[in-house]
Amino acid sequence: MSKPRIPQGTRDFSPTEVRKRQYILNTLRTIFETYGFQPLETPSMENLTTLMGKYGEEGDRLIFKILNNGLHEKKDSDKEKLNSEWNKVLEKPYSSSIVTERALRYDLTIPFARYVVMHQNDIALPFRRYQMQPVWRADRPQKGRYREFWQCDADVVGSTSLINEAELLCIYQSAFHQLKIPQVKVKINSRKLLAGLAEICGMPDKMMDITIAIDKLDKIEWTGVVAELQQKGIPDDGIEKIGKVIQLKGDNDTQLAALAEIMKTSETGLKGIEELKQTLSYYAELADKNWTSEIVVDISLARGLNYYTGVIVEVGCGAVKIGSIGGGGRYDDLTGLFGLKGVSGVGVSFGIDRTYDVMEELDLFPEQLVSGTKVLLINFGGAEEKYALGVLNKLRHVGLAAEIYPDAAKFDKQMKYANKRGLPYIIIIGEEEMRQHMVSLKNFTTGEQKMLTIHECIEALKA
Amino acid sequence: MSKPRIPQGTRDFSPTEVRKRQYILNTLRTIFETYGFQPLETPSMENLTTLMGKYGEEGDRLIFKILNNGLHEKKDSDKEKLNSEWNKVLEKPYSSSIVTERALRYDLTIPFARYVVMHQNDIALPFRRYQMQPVWRADRPQKGRYREFWQCDADVVGSTSLINEAELLCIYQSAFHQLKIPQVKVKINSRKLLAGLAEICGMPDKMMDITIAIDKLDKIEWTGVVAELQQKGIPDDGIEKIGKVIQLKGDNDTQLAALAEIMKTSETGLKGIEELKQTLSYYAELADKNWTSEIVVDISLARGLNYYTGVIVEVGCGAVKIGSIGGGGRYDDLTGLFGLKGVSGVGVSFGIDRTYDVMEELDLFPEQLVSGTKVLLINFGGAEEKYALGVLNKLRHVGLAAEIYPDAAKFDKQMKYANKRGLPYIIIIGEEEMRQHMVSLKNFTTGEQKMLTIHECIEALKA
Repeated sequence: MSKPRIPQGTRDFSPTEVRKRQYILNTLRTIFETYGFQPLETPSMENLTTLMGKYGEEGDRLIFKILNNGLHEKKDSDKEKLNSEWNKVLEKPYSSSIVTERALRYDLTIPFARYVVMHQNDIALPFRRYQMQPVWRADRPQKGRYREFWQCDADVVGSTSLINEAELLCIYQSAFHQLKIPQVKVKINSRKLLAGLAEICGMPDKMMDITIAIDKLDKIEWTGVVAELQQKGIPDDGIEKIGKVIQLKGDNDTQLAALAEIMKTSETGLKGIEELKQTLSYYAELADKNWTSEIVVDISLARGLNYYTGVIVEVGCGAVKIGSIGGGGRYDDLTGLFGLKGVSGVGVSFGIDRTYDVMEELDLFPEQLVSGTKVLLINFGGAEEKYALGVLNKLRHVGLAAEIYPDAAKFDKQMKYANKRGLPYIIIIGEEEMRQHMVSLKNFTTGEQKMLTIHECIEALKA
Repeated sequence: MSKPRIPQGTRDFSPTEVRKRQYILNTLRTIFETYGFQPLETPSMENLTTLMGKYGEEGDRLIFKILNNGLHEKKDSDKEKLNSEWNKVLEKPYSSSIVTERALRYDLTIPFARYVVMHQNDIALPFRRYQMQPVWRADRPQKGRYREFWQCDADVVGSTSLINEAELLCIYQSAFHQLKIPQVKVKINSRKLLAGLAEICGMPDKMMDITIAIDKLDKIEWTGVVAELQQKGIPDDGIEKIGKVIQLKGDNDTQLAALAEIMKTSETGLKGIEELKQTLSYYAELADKNWTSEIVVDISLARGLNYYTGVIVEVGCGAVKIGSIGGGGRYDDLTGLFGLKGVSGVGVSFGIDRTYDVMEELDLFPEQLVSGTKVLLINFGGAEEKYALGVLNKLRHVGLAAEIYPDAAKFDKQMKYANKRGLPYIIIIGEEEMRQHMVSLKNFTTGEQKMLTIHECIEALKA
């Protein structure tokens, strides 16, 4: 028999890993709820027609399609038809609803839009929802990139108020504060500023080219950016203006004031500045004074160019060499894809896998997560076993996670089990303990062992 | 544009539904952890070779297969090969790893066995794991039967001790007690008793036939069972013995004593009785005195005939007309499927969807689950908005779930929103409240409105 494996790019999560992931997800869930966001879950499968054409050609290719069931039952009557459908699939993998009509969810955004459209009469707008579920992509697996991974999104649809943007910034801050991730930096920009920049260069149609070029500033430095801008046909005085904007220094207020001066001829640009100012002002009212992460206006930030229309954000962690751990922005017409026009939205995503990696690298997970079980009762069989079961019952009754070794195995074997599980305490009950109506509690870390009443033992384990 | 839909047999879970489902899952999770069970999560996809042949022919047919990606990229060089592979698929849907090599998880048991075999050197035996994840089956959808549904399993592998059986009974009791589900009845039986019954009829090979016949007692009554037993060739004196066993009355001890007398010539039967006695005796030591559900020996109980080898259990709820809400038993060689012999296991499943339906029908979900948000701050814009944002910050700081209506919309519109969301409180802040450094808190149920300091308001909302 060949050794079993799991598909490339997928993962088993061991007990410790599940607990750590749950810790992240529960922290986020509590924050979302505190901010009035409501949970939503959509099916793993969507109809192919719902997903296709929403993620570009590359996305269409990377969607996992599900083979229709019952094909072999049709083979005798419909062989020719089935073969011709198969040839359609070979041309374009989503062209035959006879071969495949369902696919696995590729992200949480399109299913959310689909849900809002289907339930537009039931839900109260503005609708604030969060969603934490796996998605699937047939990407080539590599370090940190999986074919099944979790997304975690929070969105508000049906309101254009910038209070929403500010609250989503609060959610980022609150989350990374509670997870104790250091050196978190939230970059903020506006698509309108990027459009304004193109306008003041006299090239309103070149916003994409300009944005793509300045987004590379970190990698190719300013001289590289200049070369690319020239190549894209941006005139020299435009490039000069871009240079001025990019090299702006100072805090957010100073930068935004200077930008307003440079952009004074662009209505769109000024609108973008106004929106950033208002967002930051709302944020200042809402922010908790314990949050220490910076929020920094960064005009070189580009995100989801075909998608976002207003404020955009991205979160990085300076303490670990890793890409962004979150991002999002304002989009104007998501539900329009399914026929419901005029519903503006704004949302953010948390990168769960990367957040996990950061916390693992910086050793930020609380120690007690490793094993849920607090104590193992050693099993000596006979009357001692019976006595131990009664003790076990009392421990669990007060909510202590406890187990008994189920067999009266050799003491060494039971100790080895406790050790491998990383259990912090064991309880030993022999004749002497039974006679005195007590238990012996041994701390596995310090080696200390004490004879205690059951009540004292419960207090010690709860401490 | 056609209206978007979701695939047949799948469901969106609205915020209220997610919260209710989470309530069930969290209750179970806490209990599993208290009993020393550890969480495991496996990928949604498994290799087809892992799943095929494990669920019988019907199961193979109902497994959702995933189309391999990149087929159309191969079509020019390999057209002939691809067509012949397609024809293989039409014969047998899992016969071409070129067309499909992955599938969606069909249950949690086979992935668990696969995990244990793959990680046999890392995990401490006995391994007590719980797993709560969706599974997929291409069944014909109907009321209460879905193509995507959640399973929730707890298993112990690597120990033959009946303490495990008793602890799993405790987990059932504790769970349904905490969920407040009334009239829960746990039926318990042993495969060994069923084998013993066949032995004392002198037909040890007919255990399956006998079990299948007596399992129908509820539907076809004793005369129907007799007819079926005769048809299967069970001699009259055998049928008489079966009749005596089935009509046993009295509590568990009385029944087991009478059974021991009837089965005295069957070693297997006596072993089954011994195991049931020992399980119930362990259970008595471990049980909490608050649990009220019955545990009833029921020799007509049949479950997983090709699968279980020892104690079997099934949970029903007398208060609602619905099938079983849980079941499980002892199996002897699950990991043997993947080449690891001699690992005995015992496990139980919770039927999450049915448990949800029972709780919904009996209105057992705690009322505060419906909306997480406790209070909406009405937004009048301007200085009032600014003041309200400060209040909002203070409420969230102490963990109260609160939101502000993001736009200074008409009062009526904001009230309508609060109403549609089912929010219990609103806060109104006008000039008077600002002047006095207070807020007005309105209880939506009673209509009562009071002007309070922020501190008093927090106390009132926490109460």
